[in-house]
Amino acid sequence: LRSRLPQVGTTIFSVMSALAQQHGAVNLGQGFPDFDADPRLIDAVARAMRAGHNQYAPMPGVAALREALAGKIEQLHGRAYDPGREITITAGATQAVFTALLAFTQPGDEVIVLEPAFDSYAPGIALAGAHMVRVALDADFRPDFDAIAAAITPRTRLILTNTPHNPSGTIWSTQDLDRLHALLAPTDILLLSDEVYEHMVYDGRTHASAAGHPGLAERSVVISSFGKTYHVTGWKIGSVAAPAELTAEFRKVHQFNVFAVSSAVQQGLAEHLRDPAPYLDLPAFYQAKRERFRAGLAATPLRLRPCEGSYFQVVDYGGLRPELAALDEAAFAHWMTREIGVTAIPMSAFYADGRQRQQVRFCFAKREDTLDRALERLSRL
Amino acid sequence: LRSRLPQVGTTIFSVMSALAQQHGAVNLGQGFPDFDADPRLIDAVARAMRAGHNQYAPMPGVAALREALAGKIEQLHGRAYDPGREITITAGATQAVFTALLAFTQPGDEVIVLEPAFDSYAPGIALAGAHMVRVALDADFRPDFDAIAAAITPRTRLILTNTPHNPSGTIWSTQDLDRLHALLAPTDILLLSDEVYEHMVYDGRTHASAAGHPGLAERSVVISSFGKTYHVTGWKIGSVAAPAELTAEFRKVHQFNVFAVSSAVQQGLAEHLRDPAPYLDLPAFYQAKRERFRAGLAATPLRLRPCEGSYFQVVDYGGLRPELAALDEAAFAHWMTREIGVTAIPMSAFYADGRQRQQVRFCFAKREDTLDRALERLSRL
Ligand SMILES: CSCCC(=O)C(=O)O
Ligand SMILES: CSCCC(=O)C(=O)O
Repeated sequence: LRSRLPQVGTTIFSVMSALAQQHGAVNLGQGFPDFDADPRLIDAVARAMRAGHNQYAPMPGVAALREALAGKIEQLHGRAYDPGREITITAGATQAVFTALLAFTQPGDEVIVLEPAFDSYAPGIALAGAHMVRVALDADFRPDFDAIAAAITPRTRLILTNTPHNPSGTIWSTQDLDRLHALLAPTDILLLSDEVYEHMVYDGRTHASAAGHPGLAERSVVISSFGKTYHVTGWKIGSVAAPAELTAEFRKVHQFNVFAVSSAVQQGLAEHLRDPAPYLDLPAFYQAKRERFRAGLAATPLRLRPCEGSYFQVVDYGGLRPELAALDEAAFAHWMTREIGVTAIPMSAFYADGRQRQQVRFCFAKREDTLDRALERLSRL
Repeated sequence: LRSRLPQVGTTIFSVMSALAQQHGAVNLGQGFPDFDADPRLIDAVARAMRAGHNQYAPMPGVAALREALAGKIEQLHGRAYDPGREITITAGATQAVFTALLAFTQPGDEVIVLEPAFDSYAPGIALAGAHMVRVALDADFRPDFDAIAAAITPRTRLILTNTPHNPSGTIWSTQDLDRLHALLAPTDILLLSDEVYEHMVYDGRTHASAAGHPGLAERSVVISSFGKTYHVTGWKIGSVAAPAELTAEFRKVHQFNVFAVSSAVQQGLAEHLRDPAPYLDLPAFYQAKRERFRAGLAATPLRLRPCEGSYFQVVDYGGLRPELAALDEAAFAHWMTREIGVTAIPMSAFYADGRQRQQVRFCFAKREDTLDRALERLSRL
């Protein structure tokens, strides 16, 4: 049996969640909330099932949900996507990225990825038969536009960006989008913009969406996640907004991958989105968690990286006692799970070459008591 | 913009469902029930959501569901799959097929497909960079093993079979599996066995699963559908059973495609499967629909093909008045939707070359009153 992905094992998120469970550790590894969704949203989905929404949804998604989403994007970012031809509902953002990579590249094309990067990008590119061209973010996890410019070749088909950024927690400014646009404008390179943490931005910042950038939006496939926004990662539902010509190509692949997404979940979300903007409270809600978690970490020998957005906090363990500081990131994350009882993700998992920087990523999308329990354990460091 | 699938339009099922809606036709095209699921199953899913099963399921699926499924397969087919390493829950059978095609082929490999075939197979093979080798079923839609043998080359990696068969309604016998095994045994060709209609088999026949064939099972990826079995096509949930080595490769791709499937739906199904075999009534349930529908059709000038399994009925319209008999299948299906008010799927959609045989496919997974309404309209033929 020849493997199509010989280098690939089980995704780090499954590995670390299993390890956390095995050791009874507080799981701040895999990114998901440990609090629940709005009960009205759950009730809306249950009602939709009881009302008989149990057969195939339309392939591109339930019309009411696509309309609600288009309305939201127009309100927040000023661009009016046509829900009929420019919005598609997906089985989560991961499926959206995977499908887009297959739809928009040809074998031999190059795809620029800014590292560190979510671990599904590289295998998706490989399965599409394309080549991943890795460009490092700088030491502060900010885009290095000279390096991006240098990576562009006539074979470049797509650049994949992610803001707010998983794992680093940095966000792109409008100026960053302008600079990216200046690079892409003379080319026909497409932008795949992963914006699943769009509502987790802090300290009064706003999310700069590719959808809101008139120049970029024309060449952009913008990926969002109902799962992240409504605390229901286990429902596996996301979306893609893209100009009609791009959406048509996206749907060609989408229809033969998952075909469609849960009818009842879509109906329930469409109803929920009619409430006045249930996502407006999210920045304050998550900022309070970030404050609490950072304040606690500040009392440990872990060094904190800035966190402008997302629900991730990167720390540096280079200041710990030498035998710990000497561990590679995976070994440190295992040690911390076993000995301290708190699980994080080694940052090396986000680099194709497994680069080591003595950093791990925590997820703070947790109840206060969970964060406190983790902090209490981490104080033993 | 170069298209990755230049020949592909919107899937025929979406096209015909939209047309049915536009003309107020009885939709016997796209295959889905118009009756509802067991309310206890719906309640079980609602309970699971309310109990907080709203975050990521384990990547391979909820353990209780994998165990229940392994138990069912062992009881029905005598093979004990290890739920930990040999069963994976998928976002529907289509996603399972798509993922398997990517996981088990390399660019340039050949995949044998028996035509007519479900319309997602060919684009999945194309996206994997593999070549589809088409082998026609015979005029009675039965496998022609000499033709299959002749199609095998050193590049053949996979053969895709489907029993009970969509669209034709034929089923494979144990002897058919034996003959296929004899062909594959000297090779390392894998079998991708699409068995989503496993519980719709009629006249006392039993479903011969690749999972129950000791020789074949070792090289088989067996695909099932909770959506079809429990009348919830819109929940998008299926499964894959395969030996550990194959499952490991399948999961490598699966984890980066959809990652996982709805936690609450999996919990609800696991609970439902604890009831004594809720699928045992399905053959009689659907056979009654088949009888009713075929009896009504027998009074029209449409000629009936046999239907041994699945919930599809193929008819031949060559006996209609010449101007109708002369229409190609797509034109006839459109005409029937518009003028008669009943929608079917042109069989040409299941052939890569759009072959014309004056046949269309009806779906009879419908309430009695729906079937009667369709039959009343069809009597005008
Ligand atoms: C698909 S599991 C990973 C969840 C996540 O987005 C992360 O932890 O980075
Ligand atoms: C994915 S929509 C098609 C449903 C179906 O299986 C069919 O009609 O053949």
